[in-house]
Amino acid sequence: MKFKELLDECKIYEAGKPIELVVREYGVNEKDIIKLASNENPYGTSPKVVKKIQELSKNMFMYPDDSMYELKDSLSKKYGVLSDNVIIGAGSDQIIEFLIKAKCHVGSKILMAKTTFAMYEIYGKQEGATILRTPSNEHNLAEFEAMYKEHGADIIFLCLPNNPLGECLDKEDVYNFLAKVNKETLVIVDCAYMEYAAYKDSKKAINPSDLIERFPNAVYLGTFSKAYALGGMRVGYGIGQVGIIKTLYKVRPPFNITTLSLAAAIEALKDEEFVKKCIELNFVEMKRYEEYAKSRGFEYIESFTNFITMKFDNKFISSHVAQNLLERGVIIRDLTSYGLNAIRITIGREDQNTKVFKVLDEVLEQLKKEENL
Amino acid sequence: MKFKELLDECKIYEAGKPIELVVREYGVNEKDIIKLASNENPYGTSPKVVKKIQELSKNMFMYPDDSMYELKDSLSKKYGVLSDNVIIGAGSDQIIEFLIKAKCHVGSKILMAKTTFAMYEIYGKQEGATILRTPSNEHNLAEFEAMYKEHGADIIFLCLPNNPLGECLDKEDVYNFLAKVNKETLVIVDCAYMEYAAYKDSKKAINPSDLIERFPNAVYLGTFSKAYALGGMRVGYGIGQVGIIKTLYKVRPPFNITTLSLAAAIEALKDEEFVKKCIELNFVEMKRYEEYAKSRGFEYIESFTNFITMKFDNKFISSHVAQNLLERGVIIRDLTSYGLNAIRITIGREDQNTKVFKVLDEVLEQLKKEENL
Repeated sequence: MKFKELLDECKIYEAGKPIELVVREYGVNEKDIIKLASNENPYGTSPKVVKKIQELSKNMFMYPDDSMYELKDSLSKKYGVLSDNVIIGAGSDQIIEFLIKAKCHVGSKILMAKTTFAMYEIYGKQEGATILRTPSNEHNLAEFEAMYKEHGADIIFLCLPNNPLGECLDKEDVYNFLAKVNKETLVIVDCAYMEYAAYKDSKKAINPSDLIERFPNAVYLGTFSKAYALGGMRVGYGIGQVGIIKTLYKVRPPFNITTLSLAAAIEALKDEEFVKKCIELNFVEMKRYEEYAKSRGFEYIESFTNFITMKFDNKFISSHVAQNLLERGVIIRDLTSYGLNAIRITIGREDQNTKVFKVLDEVLEQLKKEENL
Repeated sequence: MKFKELLDECKIYEAGKPIELVVREYGVNEKDIIKLASNENPYGTSPKVVKKIQELSKNMFMYPDDSMYELKDSLSKKYGVLSDNVIIGAGSDQIIEFLIKAKCHVGSKILMAKTTFAMYEIYGKQEGATILRTPSNEHNLAEFEAMYKEHGADIIFLCLPNNPLGECLDKEDVYNFLAKVNKETLVIVDCAYMEYAAYKDSKKAINPSDLIERFPNAVYLGTFSKAYALGGMRVGYGIGQVGIIKTLYKVRPPFNITTLSLAAAIEALKDEEFVKKCIELNFVEMKRYEEYAKSRGFEYIESFTNFITMKFDNKFISSHVAQNLLERGVIIRDLTSYGLNAIRITIGREDQNTKVFKVLDEVLEQLKKEENL
């Protein structure tokens, strides 16, 4: 059976390894496993949301309100935009897919940082787009500008803050760059971790209402997967000018989030106190990772998210470190597939992080011996 | 902002109206509303599945096992295929999307019955495919064969049993037709309602293992949305030869079903007794609809599903009937957008159906007066 030739070039996303796999493959007891690989909120879902879903679980046989009236209404009030400026996706991932599908064809150009969220390229290549990456791993707007001048682009991705590296541009710099971008170029500002960045440094905060008013070619992406602790429920959103959002509805499949996901997201927006607390704790624990890295002599990237990226330079091989941690029940993300000798660790709860430092020390000690480092 | 031109031709799926909308727009009390518009299982989700989801709802912050190991394992055992023959989608809808995205480009041809599931055309047009429809509303294999001979096709859809009409071809006839189809043509056998058809008439039963062994260019689609009573959780699957399934993984987004959806589907497969009971009751209640239609002089299509299509010929205007029912809190599906003067009603529970007959009689009586019929 012949399929589209361009699929030969397409890669598959490498997900963080699930707990079930570590149980199956390494025989580690489920309760001993620490998963800090997918930037899930380690404090779990808000108890209020859990309670609501327990009440509503009998509704699983029913399709959700496909207009998503209430959720869009809540988001529009939160951000000071119209409901018609909002579209809901199965994670902000799906909004990325919609935008690329609506805008790109074979030969379209998509400009992004060298090391950024993998799905930009994956969805882009599915439409036959050419991927342009800046020379630097982290976002560098001078490089974006130079490449845009030279090659043009149908879509520009800015991941603010950036996954999987954690850095974040200042709003002022982003706006100065956007002012130089042609209005026919779609700029996707992926703010999946913005709640963390805005808390840490108000200069990073981007407000979607302000963004799309000033730059009608920009779309803001947000998600319930991180700070709102609903990663497993797959709810994200895009905010953009009405004309853009209307077009995205044409490629949105009906019922693209579940009945319980819709209810969970609506409920999560009512418990902002919980979100704030999670973010505060995140940065308390982040400090411990920074201190750990310094004390062991590892470089790390200052992070505006709920994860931290540690580089091993020529000290260790990140894939070996990750594999050894995995066999001991600690799941983190190796960044070898991004071309980096580094690991990305989600900032866990206090007890989890204490264990990570201990196990990581053991692993490094063992690797030193085995690899004569 | 310019988007792909072919989107101008794309239509948006018209979903069954949600209960929330009827509350909002017509002020009907939520508990008085009967929704029989989306072929949801009216007996609700299995209590065992509900209990499981209540237990697991605290896991909403965690991404699902993206390998979907256990669910694929359960399905492979149920059907006597390999796990590698199975791919899971956000509803079987999403498998349709994957198949069309992987196979079609501008100018591809997709052959289907005149009146069948709307998403075939919607996804097809998103890729720029040309839609070919048989002259008859219901599936007519002689027409499929003649059109295939004349035009060829990259994809053929067979909806068995057919949504929104309810009819179902015999397996023998399907196999005889498939034997004449070129192995480069992808044949998608959409069996979303097959559990109902197989119960009513064993001649309709298609076994996916047998299907894909005999016809390596065929893909079987199944869903948890209907007999398994998980419409709101968006879980479906495709079963095909390993080469086809591998290709579909290239266009599958990561985490394409939710953590709770995955758990619910696994649990639902353990309660086949519940499914059987729902199907039995469905056909007991179906008889009442058939009798109702006969007694009121309406033609109906013999249905192998959990819904029934009644035609109004020149007696009534289906959109008026549907609107009047809606205002009284009874949500059914008007088939005007399919070019038919007919309504499709999901077979509800005994109490719901009794009320539908009563309200429908009132509406017809009123329309007779108003429209001087």
